[in-house]
Amino acid sequence: MTQDPLVVFTPSGKRGRFPVGTPVLTAARQLGVDLDSVCGGRGICSKCQVQPAFGDFPKHGVTVREDALSEWNSVEQRYDDKRGLPKGRRLGCQATVQSDILIDVPESSQVHKQVVRKRVEARDITLNPAVKLYYVEVQEPDMHDPSGDLQRLCNALKDEWGVEDVKADLSILKTLQPTLRKGEWKVTCAIHHSRDAKPPTLAHIWPGYYEGSIYGMAVDLGSTTIAGHLCDLQTGEVIASSGLMNPQIRFGEDLMSRVSYSMMNAGGADEMTQAVREGMNALFTQVAAEAEIDKSLIFDAVFVCNPVMHHLFLGIDPFELGQAPFALATSDAVSLSANELELNLPSTAQAYLLPCIAGHVGADAAAVALSEAPDKSENLVLVVDVGTNAEILLGNTEKVLACSSPTGPAFEGAQISSGQRAAPGAIERVEIDPVTKEPRFRVIGSELWSDEDGFKDAIEGTGVTGICGSGIIEMVAEMRLAGIVDGPGLIGTPEQTGTERCFLDGRTYSYLVWEDGERKITVTNRDIREIQMAKAALYSGARLLMDKFGTDEVDRVVLAGAFGAHISPKHAMVLGMIPDCPLDRVTSAGNAAGTGARIALLNKDARTEIEQTVGEIHKIETAIEPRFQEHFVNASAIPNSADPFPILNSVVTLPSATFNTGGGDKSEGGGRRRRRRG
Amino acid sequence: MTQDPLVVFTPSGKRGRFPVGTPVLTAARQLGVDLDSVCGGRGICSKCQVQPAFGDFPKHGVTVREDALSEWNSVEQRYDDKRGLPKGRRLGCQATVQSDILIDVPESSQVHKQVVRKRVEARDITLNPAVKLYYVEVQEPDMHDPSGDLQRLCNALKDEWGVEDVKADLSILKTLQPTLRKGEWKVTCAIHHSRDAKPPTLAHIWPGYYEGSIYGMAVDLGSTTIAGHLCDLQTGEVIASSGLMNPQIRFGEDLMSRVSYSMMNAGGADEMTQAVREGMNALFTQVAAEAEIDKSLIFDAVFVCNPVMHHLFLGIDPFELGQAPFALATSDAVSLSANELELNLPSTAQAYLLPCIAGHVGADAAAVALSEAPDKSENLVLVVDVGTNAEILLGNTEKVLACSSPTGPAFEGAQISSGQRAAPGAIERVEIDPVTKEPRFRVIGSELWSDEDGFKDAIEGTGVTGICGSGIIEMVAEMRLAGIVDGPGLIGTPEQTGTERCFLDGRTYSYLVWEDGERKITVTNRDIREIQMAKAALYSGARLLMDKFGTDEVDRVVLAGAFGAHISPKHAMVLGMIPDCPLDRVTSAGNAAGTGARIALLNKDARTEIEQTVGEIHKIETAIEPRFQEHFVNASAIPNSADPFPILNSVVTLPSATFNTGGGDKSEGGGRRRRRRG
Repeated sequence: MTQDPLVVFTPSGKRGRFPVGTPVLTAARQLGVDLDSVCGGRGICSKCQVQPAFGDFPKHGVTVREDALSEWNSVEQRYDDKRGLPKGRRLGCQATVQSDILIDVPESSQVHKQVVRKRVEARDITLNPAVKLYYVEVQEPDMHDPSGDLQRLCNALKDEWGVEDVKADLSILKTLQPTLRKGEWKVTCAIHHSRDAKPPTLAHIWPGYYEGSIYGMAVDLGSTTIAGHLCDLQTGEVIASSGLMNPQIRFGEDLMSRVSYSMMNAGGADEMTQAVREGMNALFTQVAAEAEIDKSLIFDAVFVCNPVMHHLFLGIDPFELGQAPFALATSDAVSLSANELELNLPSTAQAYLLPCIAGHVGADAAAVALSEAPDKSENLVLVVDVGTNAEILLGNTEKVLACSSPTGPAFEGAQISSGQRAAPGAIERVEIDPVTKEPRFRVIGSELWSDEDGFKDAIEGTGVTGICGSGIIEMVAEMRLAGIVDGPGLIGTPEQTGTERCFLDGRTYSYLVWEDGERKITVTNRDIREIQMAKAALYSGARLLMDKFGTDEVDRVVLAGAFGAHISPKHAMVLGMIPDCPLDRVTSAGNAAGTGARIALLNKDARTEIEQTVGEIHKIETAIEPRFQEHFVNASAIPNSADPFPILNSVVTLPSATFNTGGGDKSEGGGRRRRRRG
Repeated sequence: MTQDPLVVFTPSGKRGRFPVGTPVLTAARQLGVDLDSVCGGRGICSKCQVQPAFGDFPKHGVTVREDALSEWNSVEQRYDDKRGLPKGRRLGCQATVQSDILIDVPESSQVHKQVVRKRVEARDITLNPAVKLYYVEVQEPDMHDPSGDLQRLCNALKDEWGVEDVKADLSILKTLQPTLRKGEWKVTCAIHHSRDAKPPTLAHIWPGYYEGSIYGMAVDLGSTTIAGHLCDLQTGEVIASSGLMNPQIRFGEDLMSRVSYSMMNAGGADEMTQAVREGMNALFTQVAAEAEIDKSLIFDAVFVCNPVMHHLFLGIDPFELGQAPFALATSDAVSLSANELELNLPSTAQAYLLPCIAGHVGADAAAVALSEAPDKSENLVLVVDVGTNAEILLGNTEKVLACSSPTGPAFEGAQISSGQRAAPGAIERVEIDPVTKEPRFRVIGSELWSDEDGFKDAIEGTGVTGICGSGIIEMVAEMRLAGIVDGPGLIGTPEQTGTERCFLDGRTYSYLVWEDGERKITVTNRDIREIQMAKAALYSGARLLMDKFGTDEVDRVVLAGAFGAHISPKHAMVLGMIPDCPLDRVTSAGNAAGTGARIALLNKDARTEIEQTVGEIHKIETAIEPRFQEHFVNASAIPNSADPFPILNSVVTLPSATFNTGGGDKSEGGGRRRRRRG
């Protein structure tokens, strides 16, 4: 008696014996091997491509004969002629097992493909979207068994795919009968799978086999900008990304002024809801146009945002968020129809908003937690998302703490005399010679430094217009390193600093950065104060979490946010924005909130994961923590020293030293170790 | 050691021992006694009224002392002062157990009250609506535990009521925060409980304790009329009923002409959808106005209708229903938001359409099955819902068969020369003297017979305008009984009949019913033919089901439908509309479809029940059953007899005999037993 042939799949290593003639796809399904198929093994979709290997494979305990699979058949030939099948590939639904065989499932044929993230420390995304495609052949109606067309479609989905209890809304019911007949009882279904007990729902039906793709949008809805990433839900790829200004800007630059607007104006919240929803529709249109796809193919959307934007986007008055105890209307994740948000998407399109962590720590912070996963980090990681409010996460696998800190808009260039938004002409990088005290800088839109030949030509058109958020951080840090500003935050006199760039400007001194016929760019002492206040708030939040965690140091620091991506970690640490940490362990995560949105879009299980994580995060409310005020006062206090420039010498000789100039007194700044880079 | 006091509840008989001081409501809940409460035992709602009994009750094995309950307290006194508590009643949440006690729970205090149906053979409705009220006290927000207001409300619902995983849509989230604060963290919630896996959803929240009621609408959406019954969901009572013409009438009187309209006119189906939805909104407004309630308190609605109306109301083109194989887009019950049907109800209001049985047997027939419950009948019952299409159910606890039969509009007075809708002036009751052949009749709007004094005065204004559906049935049956028309359906000459009321009218004879200055009401031979065709279709459908069931007789017949309520069973049987059955076992169920809708509205478990029942009903498609054609031909054939008036004598002497004049040949009519009225 001979045994059935052995089938071994790689990379999974799953193996089993199957009768001669079993299609590879069937064997894969029975073993639970992750092999894709949309057409259900009918040789139409070619998603089940596999790579058989022939020869002797002692590692896998299998020897494969040349004729271990059935011969190349006409279906495979037709597909190869039409689309081209990579050399050596077979269609898993056509090739049948003849004798022992080793089959590799290439990445592109896996259902749960990995979407690779570029950063080394970041986990890849496992593709598992909420919306998936299924091709089915439906039984024709029969007067002897008068079931509805929908019921026979659902039976096909159950029999052919094991997808049970599928529901259809009215928009699908309206098109169901003509679509089934147009496709001659063969249709492709897009089905939205809920995670909870809710049944799967039909998102769309196409007559016959649908060859196109389906899309989802991941949106980071910020107070200032709205950024969207359009993703192909079948490959996980980002097809197009785009952003626009939040139209709510006209109701107030920062969140609190928008909350005030709603308090002061009847219907104000509704106006802002209208504005942000219009902006959202404009963004969807813009991104779809860029990707050259039809908006009606977007069936899923994930949104992350701070609590005020969260409420305004949902149409909830953010009134309560403007006053203690900062009660959210709802803190849980919100799943709803995209149409409820007045998005011009198919009526079956779904929307998902990540949960909020607390009244000041929103779904954007939850998205950062999903992207940076402090709860999965062995070492203690501090994640800082810098914005008008800084969201701060501290944790490891043991526990995660979160708070927000009111940094104000200084880091965004607001309330700074020469401050401006990041735009061409804005100073973004700065170096100050510690001997001559002369500055050199680069502006957005030019690769040249200001002291390089051709700089003036390069900036012709814009000129030097101001200093953006990351520029002001570098500027103040460099001024401190160059001894132009002292520990307490006072700009020195020309005599103290030895440069005429310091000049009396009212009752304090300012530092002249640039002057041309049109503009004069200076840093005033008031600017230094603003930055001091902002960084003290940020630092105090982080310190408070460290206190709560019971630690004096962190293993690594992640700077998140579009802004965080532009901050120089060295300058941030010189300024005392973040606690001490080896410089090489400070990384930028880019737009981690947007990435978190993308993860939640591409993998519905990640939604369950972040909902659980958020439930377990320890929320710290800075407003009622006496230690926060204490840290804040200390971090912004004038150090107890008679020497107005006590650390200038060490700075000059240790330009890469990581010390804190902001937390002035001994208890905060004094106890820190100084580290050398590398 | 003494035992805890014994508490015995009636009528349930449930009993148990509870420590002294246990509130009666608590004891009831622990024993699973059906005792209502909306406020959760806070002495606010008074729904938990109970009637203690004192003295010796050997039957219940308990002797009750006068002081078996705690003393009347201030909460009870306050309620009594304000609203009045019936004598002897106590509030279950206030009165506590002191010693052995017998407690009666009056009907009005039961959650699952019985809504009594008037007909003897009909089961009462157990109240168990989808939407229920809950009063809760919600924890205030706390910065140390920053959960959303919704989450704390949900926790309260879970802790105080065991209602878990409640969801809220955006309309609720918009009002949640101000409502909680207005009610000082006490609110009343209306919650919609789904039957399937879907979580319960908030339908509304009121600040504090809401004293009002909540409502639901049961709608019978007919091709001609739309009738609505507004019900109080807390008591089950019908508060108001009203009806209006289906505005689709302008697109065609009968269903097939509407299907044709949609086939012939682009956008025709949408136009008709718009029309019926507008009519529906008008009906809701009308009924709410009649009941003097706010439409925004209607949170649930149940609809029954034939398949074409079902599709048009849902916005689905009924195209496929106009041609074999009569495929329904969906046959299952449809649950959806009332707003999806463009009903001007709260956005949280739900709508439910009963399942369709087949392409010709709709949700209205399902509703009749729910109301008349043939599947629960020990004896074999034939349920006939007469309309343009007659829906026929035959069954008992063993099995149920269903079909529809195309009776055409003759029974509704259409295609009859003097036919008209039921309206003032229409002849509805007829008697013809078998000797003189003189008719007497009654018209709608008058209690007098036409040969009584004052008749002419009574009908002044309208006059005699025509014959309505039930009138034409009586008319033809009486003409047959009086020997004016013969078995084959021919009206006799004046010589044959002995009355000048029979006159030559073209090539056949007509019978003159009424003549005044304005109008002449006659029955033509063509009218007789139309009625013969209609009754043959009806009879053949019933006969076909009997064949399929394997029976020659039925135990009882139920005439359903508004029209059925007006038919005289005797005349229907003389005419041969329905198979033979003792006359006293033929009953009218009134608007059974509407009653079915009301049952599904008041008891959500009934929805599950009818969905299961419909799944089990054997559907018979008359169009493809050769036996149906055979029965039809026979039921309309001219009997094989030389004598043109073969049964006149027996008819005259047996006015209450139940014989069939339509199924002419021996195989159909000859075999039947003649019965005398019991």
